[in-house]
Amino acid sequence: MKAIFKLSPGRGLAFGEAPVPEPGPREVLIRVRAAGICGTDLHIYGWDRWSQERIRPPLIIGHEFVGEVVAAGGMAAKVEVGQRVSAEGHITCGHCTYCRTGNGHICRDVKIIGVDRDGCFAEYICIDANNLWPVPDEIPDHHAAVFDPLGNAMHTVMAEPVGGKLLLITGAGAIGLFAVAVARYAGASRIIVLEPNPRKREIALQVGADLALNPADKGVEREVMKLSDGLGAEVLLEMSGSPAAIEQGLHLLRNGACACVLGIPPDRITIDWGREVIFKGLTIKGINGRRMFDTWYQSQNFMLRDQERIDRLITHRLPFDEFERGFELLEHGQAVKVVLEMNH
Amino acid sequence: MKAIFKLSPGRGLAFGEAPVPEPGPREVLIRVRAAGICGTDLHIYGWDRWSQERIRPPLIIGHEFVGEVVAAGGMAAKVEVGQRVSAEGHITCGHCTYCRTGNGHICRDVKIIGVDRDGCFAEYICIDANNLWPVPDEIPDHHAAVFDPLGNAMHTVMAEPVGGKLLLITGAGAIGLFAVAVARYAGASRIIVLEPNPRKREIALQVGADLALNPADKGVEREVMKLSDGLGAEVLLEMSGSPAAIEQGLHLLRNGACACVLGIPPDRITIDWGREVIFKGLTIKGINGRRMFDTWYQSQNFMLRDQERIDRLITHRLPFDEFERGFELLEHGQAVKVVLEMNH
Amino acid sequence: MKAIFKLSPGRGLAFGEAPVPEPGPREVLIRVRAAGICGTDLHIYGWDRWSQERIRPPLIIGHEFVGEVVAAGGMAAKVEVGQRVSAEGHITCGHCTYCRTGNGHICRDVKIIGVDRDGCFAEYICIDANNLWPVPDEIPDHHAAVFDPLGNAMHTVMAEPVGGKLLLITGAGAIGLFAVAVARYAGASRIIVLEPNPRKREIALQVGADLALNPADKGVEREVMKLSDGLGAEVLLEMSGSPAAIEQGLHLLRNGACACVLGIPPDRITIDWGREVIFKGLTIKGINGRRMFDTWYQSQNFMLRDQERIDRLITHRLPFDEFERGFELLEHGQAVKVVLEMNH
Amino acid sequence: MKAIFKLSPGRGLAFGEAPVPEPGPREVLIRVRAAGICGTDLHIYGWDRWSQERIRPPLIIGHEFVGEVVAAGGMAAKVEVGQRVSAEGHITCGHCTYCRTGNGHICRDVKIIGVDRDGCFAEYICIDANNLWPVPDEIPDHHAAVFDPLGNAMHTVMAEPVGGKLLLITGAGAIGLFAVAVARYAGASRIIVLEPNPRKREIALQVGADLALNPADKGVEREVMKLSDGLGAEVLLEMSGSPAAIEQGLHLLRNGACACVLGIPPDRITIDWGREVIFKGLTIKGINGRRMFDTWYQSQNFMLRDQERIDRLITHRLPFDEFERGFELLEHGQAVKVVLEMNH
Repeated sequence: MKAIFKLSPGRGLAFGEAPVPEPGPREVLIRVRAAGICGTDLHIYGWDRWSQERIRPPLIIGHEFVGEVVAAGGMAAKVEVGQRVSAEGHITCGHCTYCRTGNGHICRDVKIIGVDRDGCFAEYICIDANNLWPVPDEIPDHHAAVFDPLGNAMHTVMAEPVGGKLLLITGAGAIGLFAVAVARYAGASRIIVLEPNPRKREIALQVGADLALNPADKGVEREVMKLSDGLGAEVLLEMSGSPAAIEQGLHLLRNGACACVLGIPPDRITIDWGREVIFKGLTIKGINGRRMFDTWYQSQNFMLRDQERIDRLITHRLPFDEFERGFELLEHGQAVKVVLEMNH
Repeated sequence: MKAIFKLSPGRGLAFGEAPVPEPGPREVLIRVRAAGICGTDLHIYGWDRWSQERIRPPLIIGHEFVGEVVAAGGMAAKVEVGQRVSAEGHITCGHCTYCRTGNGHICRDVKIIGVDRDGCFAEYICIDANNLWPVPDEIPDHHAAVFDPLGNAMHTVMAEPVGGKLLLITGAGAIGLFAVAVARYAGASRIIVLEPNPRKREIALQVGADLALNPADKGVEREVMKLSDGLGAEVLLEMSGSPAAIEQGLHLLRNGACACVLGIPPDRITIDWGREVIFKGLTIKGINGRRMFDTWYQSQNFMLRDQERIDRLITHRLPFDEFERGFELLEHGQAVKVVLEMNH
Repeated sequence: MKAIFKLSPGRGLAFGEAPVPEPGPREVLIRVRAAGICGTDLHIYGWDRWSQERIRPPLIIGHEFVGEVVAAGGMAAKVEVGQRVSAEGHITCGHCTYCRTGNGHICRDVKIIGVDRDGCFAEYICIDANNLWPVPDEIPDHHAAVFDPLGNAMHTVMAEPVGGKLLLITGAGAIGLFAVAVARYAGASRIIVLEPNPRKREIALQVGADLALNPADKGVEREVMKLSDGLGAEVLLEMSGSPAAIEQGLHLLRNGACACVLGIPPDRITIDWGREVIFKGLTIKGINGRRMFDTWYQSQNFMLRDQERIDRLITHRLPFDEFERGFELLEHGQAVKVVLEMNH
Repeated sequence: MKAIFKLSPGRGLAFGEAPVPEPGPREVLIRVRAAGICGTDLHIYGWDRWSQERIRPPLIIGHEFVGEVVAAGGMAAKVEVGQRVSAEGHITCGHCTYCRTGNGHICRDVKIIGVDRDGCFAEYICIDANNLWPVPDEIPDHHAAVFDPLGNAMHTVMAEPVGGKLLLITGAGAIGLFAVAVARYAGASRIIVLEPNPRKREIALQVGADLALNPADKGVEREVMKLSDGLGAEVLLEMSGSPAAIEQGLHLLRNGACACVLGIPPDRITIDWGREVIFKGLTIKGINGRRMFDTWYQSQNFMLRDQERIDRLITHRLPFDEFERGFELLEHGQAVKVVLEMNH
């Protein structure tokens, strides 16, 4: 089969051939129909420090996809050949305390497809039947291909009730923009986005933000305070991983507020613990992955109700073998979400 | 009346005379019977950077006390002369969003007695009638004098359910040790304390810790992991304000755990946001003051049920005019809680 | 001044004269500009069993209003003459455990204006300054007059996060319909309303319901199950007080769901405790009044964002002296919310 | 193998022979070492209405046990032959929304061992490997045999934080008494038990109750109010299923309190919904089974810390073939928990 590989250490990816994998007894074989390019894939493409430490080439990358079940192992219950499915890309151990208490998203021995084992940028992928998510007919392939990043956004938004509240979202990359759309869907009263890229600020406004500001602008604090009787935002969704954004985000929260933080800084950060966390009586919630499968149910509901906003965020659909162009668009900040489509 | 003053910038406190204050219409005049020395008082005594910025001499200091109502303003409802009372030392504005929603502990315009206005290290103090806490007869004066720091500990412990859980407490100063006693009372399954001072570790064991370790010991992580199937603690109570303790405390938490943080670092701190907060799916709760008056009800219940542990933590009771000795004992780490007693 | 009285036991209300009341030291005098007629007023009008037990004529009734401060007692802080205000009609004791812990809505000694003491169907009313709610200019009088019933709906909706969830609302009286509008605003994914009155079902659809069914229809259960993969609704808002609706509502909930119940049945009810509550692992939350003042902040945000839906629900605006017509419209189910307007 | 059967409709049980079952691919075969008799077993013994509807003889009953793995199917991961295990007796479907979101305890298609399929009152039992709970050496067999009912109590106590609170427990059968012990362990400040049987009231006092009263006594309300400043209890654990106890329990709760209800009434009940649920702003939580496997971790921690109280509650240990005596002791209220022990 055709697949996109990280063949050896260093920048770039290669298009190549690999044998079709065979499903284990609890696994299924899926024919991939569409796959999304994630920021993580971009890191691997660029071969940054994180990739150098984590990735062991040769590896088929990719972890966001939709496809069709073509074969199933003998113990893979509740699966039908022909079924259209997406799948949770975090393969949990199933036995640790976290897994046994419904917290597989923080499993202590998780393996991620396209990172720790072969991924979905290929004609076929094998995955544990328990990880499958059957996709309703109403959801088109290119939407179903992004259950994974939409799920990150959904997990972040749902970590703290946002109904009727004033939200601040720092970072309008793909997941940050999904978070804007989801927060609007989930009843946020007003949404302020901080993002340096003007094009992304514009899209933020299109998918539900009331205000999109450049974080470097002098007037940011004044604007936030104007909308909040001088108190600050009620909830922060930190989607950037930028140390400056984390600092600014915490600073713009009111006392007793909640910060749901997903963005991963490249290094340690410094924060004003006393002033921003303790005196304010703040709550901070670290967000990792997607809750299995609460987040998936929530994401599916959203997809069934709000297709228009998802359409706006999938800015490019490209044939599988034009993946290089997708990576370039993303590297230059010209795309939000790129979906690769297979022609079997 | 006699009072303990910060007369002018610089180290030390002075014993002097001041006129008995007169209560405003919503206030009461209280004859002080006993008062606790807090770490904050020690900061003012030593005239550290924080004191230099916040304190405006001359000022009567002190904010933990019990006394007797001797007069009441015309609008001070529900107060009887002769009543024995302690009082919340945070005077809230009563009008901000926080105050109007039951969150006076994070009032945006709070004034603290003994810090922003005259305090309780005096024969008499005036305070808003709404701040009073009537004291039941079963609670002796020297216990009632420490409602305030016990309340800080109670607020921290009650911020996250601890029943049946493995707790880690970093820092065994007075409030940290109160937290040990309260956590035991509130059903923690096992309590591990990290504290450099061996004498305080010993007291920690006396009031309820299962294990008290020197945080500098190599074996700390091994010990915590041994007690937790290799996972780490379920709840952290951070009572030290030490950057190293915050780092170590977060590191020793399991995935999905909660850190309730009260200790205020002298400066900004650095933390491994990605590893300790996000990948772990941690929750961090900043704790400020005491909830009004939930924390007071909880503290009173505790005082009525567990007098023995409080007795162990009030290591010294001194006459009011021997306050210097109290400050010295505390500065040299030879006391946990010192209560000054008045002889009217 | 002119006022609407319950003069003596028995059906009906009378229009009469009363002296303008004088504010106590903590109170303000308000010139009423508009007032809403509530279901409670209708009960008093009709002199049902509840009224016979609770109401002591002569009494000026009414508790939903907006007006203008014309005088203030000497201790009524933070009030300006001329200020436009609504007010919380539950006068709390301020001293019980509930009041002291931010739970004044369940105060053990509450007095309600227009029920336990004179109300707002008059040219003037006196009320405790702490109960005032200043009204922003953007909110017109006839909207500000209904803060109280909107607040009941808001309190019910906000008692359980509804973002992204399938809601069932039983009962589309005025508060039930406000709940539909608020639930839509607060991010409910889909809203099903059960209501026997076809006119009210129609209005429910106008203000945000996806489906409005007659609870007596055979197909109700089938419809709810169709929308929920055969599981049932995720949240019930019980706004009717009808024993049959409570039973049906609980029955249509999925396992692990939450029922927020506000409607007060006229008598004891019977329920299938084992099947509907225990085996389902249900949570039931009783809702009383409005949280002070969390609910008011939330309601104000809603009013500032969603004026159109409120307009649809205030079906009639009548001059104060045509109150009889308002009561008739309500008794015949021809109005949702009637607002009486004063011409000073 | 030997087993205890319900052979045919009607009162009683029979001791008989059955073939040793064979484990399926995901199952293990366990040699039973000890098993507890549950109230459910008593219902089946007595052949009450519930049993007549649910039980299909012939059936081996029993669902509380500890044993030793003697064989495992090919797909039964993480199991070692020789391992000592207890097991969750609710066999969940693994595929419904509840199962996929960590809520298997309310699975829509659960099968219970000893009720819907053969149980553990036998020399051997087969069960799904995912249901196993490995037992640490420190926990003796007769304790490990009661993980199931202890888990019901634990689930009820942990449904609402009890640390520092005044608890009311209605019903001191085996699970009610386990709840007393667990609530004491989990930090309840004071525990009042209502139970008609004087012998059980005495045991309640032995395992942690502060007060054990006959619910029929006139002075009950006065006593509860005396301990709660006239407010009522903060948390109710309803363990009896008696309609009168449910009514009394709700009535003795303060405003804003929480009722965790586990006891299943034989029929519909009537309650004063307006007065007890709505005006009080009560929360009611229905409790079903044990959370998988949160409750098991919590129960194990308790067993490791508080063996003495469990010992008091296992009033009788009998050889397997004297099961008739166990049932008689329970029917006459002379035993709390009876454990049957195998001699292989």
